[in-house]
Amino acid sequence: MIHVQYEEAVRQMTRGLERYLNPQDAKRFAEIFAGNSLDGVYSHGMNRYPRYLADMENGLCDARVTQAERVSGLGGLEVWDAHFGVGPLIAQQMAERAIELAKTHGIACVALRNNSHWLRAGRYGLMMADAGMMGLCMTNTCMNLVAYGAKEPSTGNNPITIAIPRKAGSLVMDMAVSQYAFGKLEIMAQEGGMLDTPCGYDTEGNLTCDPKKIVESGLMTPMALWKGSALSIMIDLMVSMLSLGRTSLEIGTPADGEKGMSQMFVCMNPAAVVDMDKAEEQMEKSIAFLNALEPKDGVHGVHAPGENLKRTRARNMERGIPVTEDTWQKIENAAK
Amino acid sequence: MIHVQYEEAVRQMTRGLERYLNPQDAKRFAEIFAGNSLDGVYSHGMNRYPRYLADMENGLCDARVTQAERVSGLGGLEVWDAHFGVGPLIAQQMAERAIELAKTHGIACVALRNNSHWLRAGRYGLMMADAGMMGLCMTNTCMNLVAYGAKEPSTGNNPITIAIPRKAGSLVMDMAVSQYAFGKLEIMAQEGGMLDTPCGYDTEGNLTCDPKKIVESGLMTPMALWKGSALSIMIDLMVSMLSLGRTSLEIGTPADGEKGMSQMFVCMNPAAVVDMDKAEEQMEKSIAFLNALEPKDGVHGVHAPGENLKRTRARNMERGIPVTEDTWQKIENAAK
Repeated sequence: MIHVQYEEAVRQMTRGLERYLNPQDAKRFAEIFAGNSLDGVYSHGMNRYPRYLADMENGLCDARVTQAERVSGLGGLEVWDAHFGVGPLIAQQMAERAIELAKTHGIACVALRNNSHWLRAGRYGLMMADAGMMGLCMTNTCMNLVAYGAKEPSTGNNPITIAIPRKAGSLVMDMAVSQYAFGKLEIMAQEGGMLDTPCGYDTEGNLTCDPKKIVESGLMTPMALWKGSALSIMIDLMVSMLSLGRTSLEIGTPADGEKGMSQMFVCMNPAAVVDMDKAEEQMEKSIAFLNALEPKDGVHGVHAPGENLKRTRARNMERGIPVTEDTWQKIENAAK
Repeated sequence: MIHVQYEEAVRQMTRGLERYLNPQDAKRFAEIFAGNSLDGVYSHGMNRYPRYLADMENGLCDARVTQAERVSGLGGLEVWDAHFGVGPLIAQQMAERAIELAKTHGIACVALRNNSHWLRAGRYGLMMADAGMMGLCMTNTCMNLVAYGAKEPSTGNNPITIAIPRKAGSLVMDMAVSQYAFGKLEIMAQEGGMLDTPCGYDTEGNLTCDPKKIVESGLMTPMALWKGSALSIMIDLMVSMLSLGRTSLEIGTPADGEKGMSQMFVCMNPAAVVDMDKAEEQMEKSIAFLNALEPKDGVHGVHAPGENLKRTRARNMERGIPVTEDTWQKIENAAK
């Protein structure tokens, strides 16, 4: 693991992206990769850069398209089409559009179809929260989880993010409906421990807490079994209906390459309807209550989601962003 | 267990409620209790009737208030105050208001503060879906779950519902963020089996799949541990900020009596922005795919949430609603 300064990371990735994008878009996209890693979301930051370059190279993502097209709308609800363009750039455009709409309509929802992978869900919620809004964003994915009651991958890990404005630093929850990312399971399988909660089947179809067996079978369940499964299915049907975009079924299996997701960007404007000083005051009481709880053994403390984000960001800004040597090598090679 | 015809259930409960409400409101409230049980949601239907009567008797719920008051608004976003009135009647009013607003604004959110228990979350989502809209409703609750990393109850099971319009019968997911209702755990503890997934601690603070030990300690976790905990906290902070209403912390522990919840009713109007015939067509393909999956042993089939609702409703309409003799006795006594 090496540490790379944020500005240097942006510079190197911008160069590699300029093969596909104009200088301005290349820089904006590089800032997304670097910014996600800066925030500690390493799985959806710079580590995804080589794969995204490959996706643009092989056409899974159409690098010529960096802006979505408006299809229809009524008041605060709009449908846009990404035409398989550059996912995170288009997702940022949609978050900005939702913020704009929420300023006049109080609440807005931008439903987007045919987008490429948006990387980190939380980013778009945070954009809204940093603008004083509440964000609620969801996407569907390919079918990478076993729906409850089934034997094979049949629903997506469909991430959902909720973000809340806060003077001390916006709060954000960013989670897929699987208990773990598959990559995390692989790491835990190598480490040899057992999971606290079963989140997949062995090759015989038995629920198991052994990450090795789940990695072997490839059969991961949604978090909380039937509950996560229901949530996964409803997110998929909601985002695909609202955008008239692809369902997880149409996106297909992971082997199909994840192309053309349906997404929604809901933005709410609390400052338009409540006294934000009072609202923040009562929120701070809740957060202080959580922080003051006696933690269980081995736990550092109880926190609201995203509470530690500012600290992580500051630390990575100072000491540099941790990146594997392999990833950094690829980033440098692409910059040549 | 006995079976009572829907009309008879409504008639008997209306009589009991007329002690607190005018005849029209009494009938509407009775229809909510009976309707929830008719749909198979027995835990939040007629079985809650005796307790709700007691809440109105002792003032936890103010029976004089059956309509909320509008506090503020911008476009599709409005804040209302329930003034501790009759929860389900007011929640219905809010769902209707959200539907009305979504007709002109495309998307609407009614944030409600100081409401009493709304009984069944799914009801309000279903009202929207049956009106051709998508519904997304949430409420906070008292602190009845142990936040992840803590040792004591410190966050709510904050139910969330998502409903989607469908010609064949609206879909609805209605779930608290706990893995089980506590009452369900008690039943399973009596039956003596083990849970598929750990959802609470024993008195020593160890995660356990033994329902007996969780009932003994009273320490239930959110579903999926840290994931459900994050979701629970964010729902609480979101609904309380948006309505400037009570947080779970302010609502207190279950022993405080559950008074003055914060709720939100989001309604989206897909028919205003997409071709609903096409949207339903692709949704039907997804549902048919799920239904056609080979089910695991012991499972009847894989379904979208709420898919079986119509059948349950029809069966209970025909053979009568199952109610415990004890509950029916109380309903009849209250009608005298």
